[in-house]
Amino acid sequence: MQDGSDKDMKQLNEQMNLGAFVFTFGHHFAAWRHPGTDTNEIISMDFYKELAASAERGKLDMLFLADSGSIPLSDAESSARFVYPEATAVLGALAAITDKIGIAATVSTTFNDPYNVARRFSTLDHLSKGRAAWNVVTSTKEGDALNYSMEKLPEHGSRYERAREFLDVTNALWDSWEDDALLWDKKAGLFADKEKVHLLEHRGESFSVLGPLNIPRSPQGRPVIIQAGTSPAGSRFAASGADVIFTACEDKDEAIRFYKHVKGLLPEFGREVGEVKILPGLMYFVGATEAEAKAKEEEFYELILPSAGVTYLSRMLNVDLSGYSIDEQLPDIPLEGNTSRAKIIMETARRTKQTIRELGLHFAVARGHMKVRGTPEQIADVMEDWFRSAACDGFNIMPPLLPGGMGEFVDQVVPVLQRRGLFRTEYSGNTLRDHLGLSRPISQFAASVETAKEG
Amino acid sequence: MQDGSDKDMKQLNEQMNLGAFVFTFGHHFAAWRHPGTDTNEIISMDFYKELAASAERGKLDMLFLADSGSIPLSDAESSARFVYPEATAVLGALAAITDKIGIAATVSTTFNDPYNVARRFSTLDHLSKGRAAWNVVTSTKEGDALNYSMEKLPEHGSRYERAREFLDVTNALWDSWEDDALLWDKKAGLFADKEKVHLLEHRGESFSVLGPLNIPRSPQGRPVIIQAGTSPAGSRFAASGADVIFTACEDKDEAIRFYKHVKGLLPEFGREVGEVKILPGLMYFVGATEAEAKAKEEEFYELILPSAGVTYLSRMLNVDLSGYSIDEQLPDIPLEGNTSRAKIIMETARRTKQTIRELGLHFAVARGHMKVRGTPEQIADVMEDWFRSAACDGFNIMPPLLPGGMGEFVDQVVPVLQRRGLFRTEYSGNTLRDHLGLSRPISQFAASVETAKEG
Repeated sequence: MQDGSDKDMKQLNEQMNLGAFVFTFGHHFAAWRHPGTDTNEIISMDFYKELAASAERGKLDMLFLADSGSIPLSDAESSARFVYPEATAVLGALAAITDKIGIAATVSTTFNDPYNVARRFSTLDHLSKGRAAWNVVTSTKEGDALNYSMEKLPEHGSRYERAREFLDVTNALWDSWEDDALLWDKKAGLFADKEKVHLLEHRGESFSVLGPLNIPRSPQGRPVIIQAGTSPAGSRFAASGADVIFTACEDKDEAIRFYKHVKGLLPEFGREVGEVKILPGLMYFVGATEAEAKAKEEEFYELILPSAGVTYLSRMLNVDLSGYSIDEQLPDIPLEGNTSRAKIIMETARRTKQTIRELGLHFAVARGHMKVRGTPEQIADVMEDWFRSAACDGFNIMPPLLPGGMGEFVDQVVPVLQRRGLFRTEYSGNTLRDHLGLSRPISQFAASVETAKEG
Repeated sequence: MQDGSDKDMKQLNEQMNLGAFVFTFGHHFAAWRHPGTDTNEIISMDFYKELAASAERGKLDMLFLADSGSIPLSDAESSARFVYPEATAVLGALAAITDKIGIAATVSTTFNDPYNVARRFSTLDHLSKGRAAWNVVTSTKEGDALNYSMEKLPEHGSRYERAREFLDVTNALWDSWEDDALLWDKKAGLFADKEKVHLLEHRGESFSVLGPLNIPRSPQGRPVIIQAGTSPAGSRFAASGADVIFTACEDKDEAIRFYKHVKGLLPEFGREVGEVKILPGLMYFVGATEAEAKAKEEEFYELILPSAGVTYLSRMLNVDLSGYSIDEQLPDIPLEGNTSRAKIIMETARRTKQTIRELGLHFAVARGHMKVRGTPEQIADVMEDWFRSAACDGFNIMPPLLPGGMGEFVDQVVPVLQRRGLFRTEYSGNTLRDHLGLSRPISQFAASVETAKEG
């Protein structure tokens, strides 16, 4: 356990939460070039079946899918990393081929409409019997805007304002049928209790939504809300409404500071420390010996083309670096309105004075996420240290190669964590909220809530 | 075979195509009140598993899902009919739990964005190995607009203009990676051939889309396109770009006229008669004897509440009928800008002089679709007659009750059609285009197409 001072910040649960972050070929930037990836099909059900079976065998909390709205044409030759199957369509499939594990998809609030998104996730929560989660993002790529009939991206602040209103609307839509609204009285012909199905009559800056949703309330009440922003606006947004915060952090002390900061914001929003789980991404290279793990990582490194590193940096910094010499230092990029990830890259560049080539290789591997290499015991050591240091409530693991890398983690690292009592050996509940130890939200329209407001 | 005069209009295939139109409790308006429906769960995987297994056992061409963007709050008590799980999320699940059957989802062009929709259906086509279809609709319910930040629906003509541009964009996005764009050259690090991945640079009335899609071309090249409009604008839109037309028609002569009309429009768009399949909806009540079928239908009729019929008519006519006496004749509703279905209802009202109660009961059952009742042989007789009369290329069957009603059709009516040589006994291909006898479209960006244009 921790020193007393951080006790109130500490996770209430004694076990970690583990998500698995899924990418088409795996998380390593050049995974598609690895001999271990199957390149017969670009998006296949067999791929998802294999990795879902591994993740569920490992009793992980959830499968997590990213998403994106563009692909950099400048580097089609190495663009495998930017192919994104649409995440909610994949979630439908995952709902069908899994039984217990949570399923999370990223959908942008910048290029979608709340009634559609609320319907999609409600449907997925019903189909999965309460295992759906939405990773609420604002789009950060200028290239995305050009695919969505915009001249340029809305600026950072207004993207967050829209996101906040978007989430208010989807929450209200999910709440619009109270839990006991369905009467199912076949004889009388009373399907629902009209008094328990509510209009929203929302009229805001970005959206006007009458409601109600055309789907009764889903098993989790509301799908689990994930947020990944670590900017000041992002942190406040997450603290106000997220159940899970997915972060990128290479440094434990920084992770501890972020953890403390966000958990400290919760009371302001009437929330308790245990109501938000903070999970940094974790990339790993695991081997029977340290030397084997090192060799594995090096094999991957050699697959990254320097040009692919430049593409990656250009995309993350929203700037075209192809005109610069790859062996020069990274020029100073304006960070105004840019993402937290861009800031991390620029800070690293200033601190380490690395060249574009070096930075590209560095960030293309784990993209600013922590990276551990070693035996299963060594990897578990780092995880335990972060967890016990109140740097996180668990991790979102990032297998370098998929689907194979998922089995590697589940069969080698998870048993070590289980032996140490740090991770479950069986699912104790059926919904993702159960796995995460989160309570089921009461509808904002329920009489008990009204009374509480008045009282 | 047919008389000579209609020969050129006749379907090229000697067997019919059969879709299965899926609704939460079944197609009958009051299906949820029937003793045969399970009312433990509103949207469940088991439901889809059971009906998908039946449909696939019957070798049907596809499962077809409708969708909607609102629910009439005025009649929550009997609103079971207006609960719509989001169709593409369900399609992801269907892709996972089926092997051969096509899977079709309705998505509105009025409240969506082409880059999102193109990504969603491309993903579903990949996951299903070439079985996805999109039913392209324009939204027709005023209530929908109020959930999508609009004061009112755009008028009929501009909805179709947007739909046309929407489909142009999605087609170009699906074509943006040529079939042989993927190189998969791991050694050289060449994932794709940049020359075969294309920008759209689309700048139109409603959309500006740079492209390319961030997903390589899907197994069917493009998902199958379904269209349901029967208005003049709708028919032309369908003739120009649909692979399947889903119609509602109670009368065979009218169906023959529509069939002839649409097939006659095809040459204008450079298309052949066999390139579009016309499938009217077909509701059935099947029994071992005629009397049994009749009793079954009557049992269903008795479940419809008159008030539910009024809700149904109000919704279809975009007008609130609750202020009228249910035993009066239907007032004259302005049809300007209204749907084809509204026109059918008004024409029936004028012709038959039925009261609101009578019309509500009539249309609530099959909603303007043909309805047959009888033994399996009798139902097959009607189907064969329409098919051989060039009134259609097949049907979209509408089980009154689901999931049970699907098995009834598959186990009783399908074998009769198979014995008569009117329907397949085994799938001969793997994709929905195979089942429908449609060729796989070549990318509009492929060199061969360019050459053909120039030549």
